[in-house]
Amino acid sequence: MIYLDHNATTPIDPEVRGAMLPYLGDEFGNPSSSHGLGMRARAAVDLAREQVAGLLGCTPEEIVFTGGGSEANNLALKGIADALVGRGNHFITSVIEHPAIINPCRYLERKGYRVTYLPVDSTGLVAPEAVRAAITDATILISIMHANNEVGTIQPVEEIGRIARERGIIFHTDAAQSVGKIATRVDALSVDLLTAAGHKLYAPKGVGALFVRQGITLEPLIHGAAHERGLRAGTENVASIVGLGQACEIAGRALAETARHVQGLRDALYRGLPEKVGGVRLNGHPERRLPNTLNLSFDGLDSDELLRALPEIAASTGAACHAHSREPSAVLTAMGIGADLALGAVRFSLGKGNTRGEVDRAVQLIAEVVGNLGGRLGA
Amino acid sequence: MIYLDHNATTPIDPEVRGAMLPYLGDEFGNPSSSHGLGMRARAAVDLAREQVAGLLGCTPEEIVFTGGGSEANNLALKGIADALVGRGNHFITSVIEHPAIINPCRYLERKGYRVTYLPVDSTGLVAPEAVRAAITDATILISIMHANNEVGTIQPVEEIGRIARERGIIFHTDAAQSVGKIATRVDALSVDLLTAAGHKLYAPKGVGALFVRQGITLEPLIHGAAHERGLRAGTENVASIVGLGQACEIAGRALAETARHVQGLRDALYRGLPEKVGGVRLNGHPERRLPNTLNLSFDGLDSDELLRALPEIAASTGAACHAHSREPSAVLTAMGIGADLALGAVRFSLGKGNTRGEVDRAVQLIAEVVGNLGGRLGA
Repeated sequence: MIYLDHNATTPIDPEVRGAMLPYLGDEFGNPSSSHGLGMRARAAVDLAREQVAGLLGCTPEEIVFTGGGSEANNLALKGIADALVGRGNHFITSVIEHPAIINPCRYLERKGYRVTYLPVDSTGLVAPEAVRAAITDATILISIMHANNEVGTIQPVEEIGRIARERGIIFHTDAAQSVGKIATRVDALSVDLLTAAGHKLYAPKGVGALFVRQGITLEPLIHGAAHERGLRAGTENVASIVGLGQACEIAGRALAETARHVQGLRDALYRGLPEKVGGVRLNGHPERRLPNTLNLSFDGLDSDELLRALPEIAASTGAACHAHSREPSAVLTAMGIGADLALGAVRFSLGKGNTRGEVDRAVQLIAEVVGNLGGRLGA
Repeated sequence: MIYLDHNATTPIDPEVRGAMLPYLGDEFGNPSSSHGLGMRARAAVDLAREQVAGLLGCTPEEIVFTGGGSEANNLALKGIADALVGRGNHFITSVIEHPAIINPCRYLERKGYRVTYLPVDSTGLVAPEAVRAAITDATILISIMHANNEVGTIQPVEEIGRIARERGIIFHTDAAQSVGKIATRVDALSVDLLTAAGHKLYAPKGVGALFVRQGITLEPLIHGAAHERGLRAGTENVASIVGLGQACEIAGRALAETARHVQGLRDALYRGLPEKVGGVRLNGHPERRLPNTLNLSFDGLDSDELLRALPEIAASTGAACHAHSREPSAVLTAMGIGADLALGAVRFSLGKGNTRGEVDRAVQLIAEVVGNLGGRLGA
């Protein structure tokens, strides 16, 4: 199988798994316990916190471990809504956010908050000036994703962050898809809150982190005992937290080199295809894009049918979360792409383990299947 | 090290770890993905859901996987508060619940809900008639734990459930400490919502489940994509869910036998001690108690000092979550135990891996240390 679905989830890096295994074995202590086993578990969590902070360029105390990216997003949005309830009730976000941003916003709207959902252009970009124009005296949070999961478009987060700072408004970015793929240092991005998700960067599923800039007050989403400086109750998921830390350290060691490798393969895949099949359209920004992401519409073809005919290739017809739905992607629709082309979209998302041989084989397989399926392709 | 702290956390059963490992390796698919790797991950989650349902005596569709017991408790309380906001605003719980119940209740009080915290008697029992008397027309949820984490007292959940059902009120029990130790079949317990926590029954940390009886409507705590029938967003923690399923299957195979083994060791520990050291007081109910839990106050001694002098034994001076605090335990205080005895309390919680040799050695070590520390013991 040629796995080209790394935006859905990544394999666990063997070095990450190696770091985790002791904590699934003899080192099973609860970090809250006072005995040696507990203290060693506490030390492991502390090290992981430093490793995550190292990749994000923040202090360890600014990292809150969560059960995943969706929880981190919910904590950011609802945590600010609750903490600043007396100061305002308006949120600004975009129409192409992940459901773990859109649906908490819908929930907050049902609770009486107001949300502005900014549009995007045909490449998937939010205009910073549109953010500025949407700000009101009641605005308490701006949440704009760093990179889009479906098309990979990278938002002008730095500019939006500067606008937020000028106006004294807290700025959150959902960086679930960008952490480990491109630079995500919180000061360079000018963000106050940032979401990371383990399983998008070769760490396990079920663990994530929220960066919370010092001085920002959040109401917890999960109340209970005083774990994570009182911001997230629940016995720490030691093994997975260790894995996330190790994955962040590995990512930080060779961020640019890994990106170059993956981007080279991605571009080879893209360049290879049009030579063999016509009618292929790139979705997303041509340059401001995650180095691993290639979202292509095959004109006249149904992407579901296409992928079913390609069992050797693992890719996605949209975000994995939507994979069982045959509605055209909301992200592509928001970018002005018609239903026909949207239903012909395939997301190829490459990873550090992919090889040139896999890409060449994928090009060949796709060309064969597109030829067999007909449509307007290859005509 | 003699590990007698299983109520804080358990080692992962080797069979559980074996079931998990493929999903931390080659079988890393996202269950939402349509390709083979995704479908195999989906099948693994489905099997685990059946295994958990098997232990709880419910249907697989009634299981919602969460990131742990604290999250499951928060989902139950806040999910009902939100879903029934038009019907009432009153909750009934007890003073000896885990912080993951008490603190969501405090949060709900800040949001305008009313909460009745029922007292317990000197053995830690809630009176069912006190539950009945606390019910008002505004009561929307009763949440009483199945077994207490510190002293092990098992509440009369069946009777409370019958009262709740008579009055048409939803009944939740936090069974984090009882699942896998004693029978927790939801129909026998007459509960509508039940919390389980993986790491208390030889599954990993960072995974739990909430049983939600068919027909009960909950607002999600984590909004996002439509995982877990729309009740809990976030890519499924496949490996840990598989582990929880396997742990439930193992627990169900030999529930009574394991309980007998553990209870035999626990009672040997208790019987062994007073022969060698005097001034030992049992906290919790003498019979209605988890088979593995032995909470003892050493009169005249500080439990923290005692455990520091016993580095070979891992036990707890209270719930692990409170271990860094030297306030007397709120649970023991609620049971009418004075600060002196409460600060002399040690929780020994045994597990299926403990042996008679370990217990005999523990008795010997404790007797020696108590003798050295003096106090009124051994006098």
